[in-house]
Amino acid sequence: MKKKLLLQMDCNPHASVFDAVVAHDAGVDVLLQQSGITPDDVRDQIYGLMFTRGGDDLKNSAAFIGGSDVATGEAMLKAATGSFFGNVRVSVMLDSNGCNTTAAAAVAKLCGNDGLKGKKCVVLAGTGPVGKRAAGLMALEGADVVLTSRRMDRVNEACTEVNERFNVTIQGAEVATEEQAAAALDGAYAVLCAGAAGIQLISKDLWANHPTLKRLGDINAVPPLGIEDTKAHFDGETMNDKIVFGALGIGNLKMKVHRECIKRLFASNDKVFDAEEVYAVAKEML
Amino acid sequence: MKKKLLLQMDCNPHASVFDAVVAHDAGVDVLLQQSGITPDDVRDQIYGLMFTRGGDDLKNSAAFIGGSDVATGEAMLKAATGSFFGNVRVSVMLDSNGCNTTAAAAVAKLCGNDGLKGKKCVVLAGTGPVGKRAAGLMALEGADVVLTSRRMDRVNEACTEVNERFNVTIQGAEVATEEQAAAALDGAYAVLCAGAAGIQLISKDLWANHPTLKRLGDINAVPPLGIEDTKAHFDGETMNDKIVFGALGIGNLKMKVHRECIKRLFASNDKVFDAEEVYAVAKEML
Amino acid sequence: MKKKLLLQMDCNPHASVFDAVVAHDAGVDVLLQQSGITPDDVRDQIYGLMFTRGGDDLKNSAAFIGGSDVATGEAMLKAATGSFFGNVRVSVMLDSNGCNTTAAAAVAKLCGNDGLKGKKCVVLAGTGPVGKRAAGLMALEGADVVLTSRRMDRVNEACTEVNERFNVTIQGAEVATEEQAAAALDGAYAVLCAGAAGIQLISKDLWANHPTLKRLGDINAVPPLGIEDTKAHFDGETMNDKIVFGALGIGNLKMKVHRECIKRLFASNDKVFDAEEVYAVAKEML
Repeated sequence: MKKKLLLQMDCNPHASVFDAVVAHDAGVDVLLQQSGITPDDVRDQIYGLMFTRGGDDLKNSAAFIGGSDVATGEAMLKAATGSFFGNVRVSVMLDSNGCNTTAAAAVAKLCGNDGLKGKKCVVLAGTGPVGKRAAGLMALEGADVVLTSRRMDRVNEACTEVNERFNVTIQGAEVATEEQAAAALDGAYAVLCAGAAGIQLISKDLWANHPTLKRLGDINAVPPLGIEDTKAHFDGETMNDKIVFGALGIGNLKMKVHRECIKRLFASNDKVFDAEEVYAVAKEML
Repeated sequence: MKKKLLLQMDCNPHASVFDAVVAHDAGVDVLLQQSGITPDDVRDQIYGLMFTRGGDDLKNSAAFIGGSDVATGEAMLKAATGSFFGNVRVSVMLDSNGCNTTAAAAVAKLCGNDGLKGKKCVVLAGTGPVGKRAAGLMALEGADVVLTSRRMDRVNEACTEVNERFNVTIQGAEVATEEQAAAALDGAYAVLCAGAAGIQLISKDLWANHPTLKRLGDINAVPPLGIEDTKAHFDGETMNDKIVFGALGIGNLKMKVHRECIKRLFASNDKVFDAEEVYAVAKEML
Repeated sequence: MKKKLLLQMDCNPHASVFDAVVAHDAGVDVLLQQSGITPDDVRDQIYGLMFTRGGDDLKNSAAFIGGSDVATGEAMLKAATGSFFGNVRVSVMLDSNGCNTTAAAAVAKLCGNDGLKGKKCVVLAGTGPVGKRAAGLMALEGADVVLTSRRMDRVNEACTEVNERFNVTIQGAEVATEEQAAAALDGAYAVLCAGAAGIQLISKDLWANHPTLKRLGDINAVPPLGIEDTKAHFDGETMNDKIVFGALGIGNLKMKVHRECIKRLFASNDKVFDAEEVYAVAKEML
């Protein structure tokens, strides 16, 4: 039985320790941690996996793509899958900056058992990697998605990207003021605060007595939190008849999903874990 | 019992994944993979192996030198062996760009059970690392070796290098045309096509009815292959009464030899695996 | 049971192989070896340890700080401990250039069972990392310490640093000549030669019939040794009624201490091994 070997290709000067620990805790036997990888480097490294083990043993070699820059990670994933020859391939997972596992966990929490089909979902400050993926996953669930940001040009760019990437149709809205936030949330069932650490996006006035909002999520763990007067450790707590998920509550599921995806890389040699596949795992693990 | 620890010193910006997987599959317990190593870096890293384990435990630490640049690898090997103090040393293997294992496997295949003594052997497009090593190993088997290239200055440089390195006398020939190829192969028993990927070196007209050629080898796996109308997976197949070894046939033996050499690094602390030692393993494993 | 995972953060372009082998021989299951780490990089890497394992599992993740530059290592240690949030922390050890383990082993040998309290101890050529730490540890044992160097400005700088770091009061002396060395050693009980490799610091004339010197130590293993007419392998040998410890004798204890400290990193998640803590281990292991 060959050792389970994971190649961690990271675009940062120093590869993520976080991703490395998760990989080992997910049962990887050998981790090859490589830093400063560019999309141009990927093919030769992937060849090193493809051409060293044959037949059924190939499933014991896999690749993980990480690092802070999600666009680079996406280009690396494309380079990796573009290197395969038919069945001579290895399983690969993309989770630059934790974007896929975080977005998947957040949307799975907001989706819950009731689903999002036909419901309005808002992603506040959604132009970052997590926000865009969350918006795409919500849209795939059948939600009517509104992605917001303080700047309309960024909103438009992000919506176009999400619509093309996920083959969906989401809407955008400029939200720079409390009034604009209220307008964006009008009629919404769920909201995800996908903004930067330490920035409040929804005041208690706005959410506590909101007539339609039922589920609220926040990926910001650093006070002030994205949703005023909630706690980062909330994991489905009910406040004012609304169900709230804080960053640590979402983070717990994210960790489980991350480990489970790594495990599944070694089930066969043809897995590709990007947003959709990671999300499917997150829903299973709810 | 100490873990078997292999230090992989690679001159490339990102150390070879191929070499890493082979090392693990050869039974290495711990691989220290270091990239961007220059000959000047080697001594301190080798000291780190020499001065951490004593006596019989020293055989559980070893070094592998790899990377794309064979000349740098050779300088690294020299720096490594030059760092030893008497018995305080570790076993070390050089296989930059797979040059030693590939050349050893190719020559072992062409040699077979009948040997090459007194027979004319031609290495076409032989000025690269594999070609030069193959020419040297054939000469050590007693063959009359002709190394060719399109440019005579490169031929002369390569022959001088081979003659000095292996203490043999090989000949050179310019081969830029079909006529020159025919002349070089006149009276030859074996030929190795050591050229770049995707370049045909021998037409079927030239080899199929050749009066003396008996064994043909090719290290090019990318069509068009080096030998027209053969297959990369040929591993001793007979065509037109000639025995043919394609790049994948040679590659299978190369992989076994590579793994076996890594294993043997840990048998004692005084092994040096360069072309000759790797070739001895290849002949055993035929 | 989680694997024992050690993050080796090294400021050099190529992380220490020495430290890596010791870590594995000390029972570490997984070593993450990272090179070229600056103090600014430390927080994110330490976060990768802190936020991947929870509760009692956190003790199975730890960090080692190494590399040639001790000042950088000290800044990295400060950055690491400054990253902790209350109980969410990991154990960490500093041993840049082996400074802590070497100084601890040397002082433990010179201290022996008789102690250094109230005794004059001299650190010759003591302005380097080992010398400064040794001087501080001797002072903590209650010795009257004199640190010397050929240049008085460096002596003063080193003494100030030691006094602040260890909260002690050591003295300095310029020693550039045999006469100055004799003066510095006047009334001394122990001396540690902490100079560079290959430089003699004490002539046999000076030490062999010295009226008060009882214990001599030397960290220079390259002839000429720091103490004339002794041997690097001396490990408490008596010559002229004086007890002598050579660099290899001290080095043997250093290796044991280094391994033991690594082991103890995994006993709980709140250990910090700097000079004092490493020294406590060295005294236990005498």
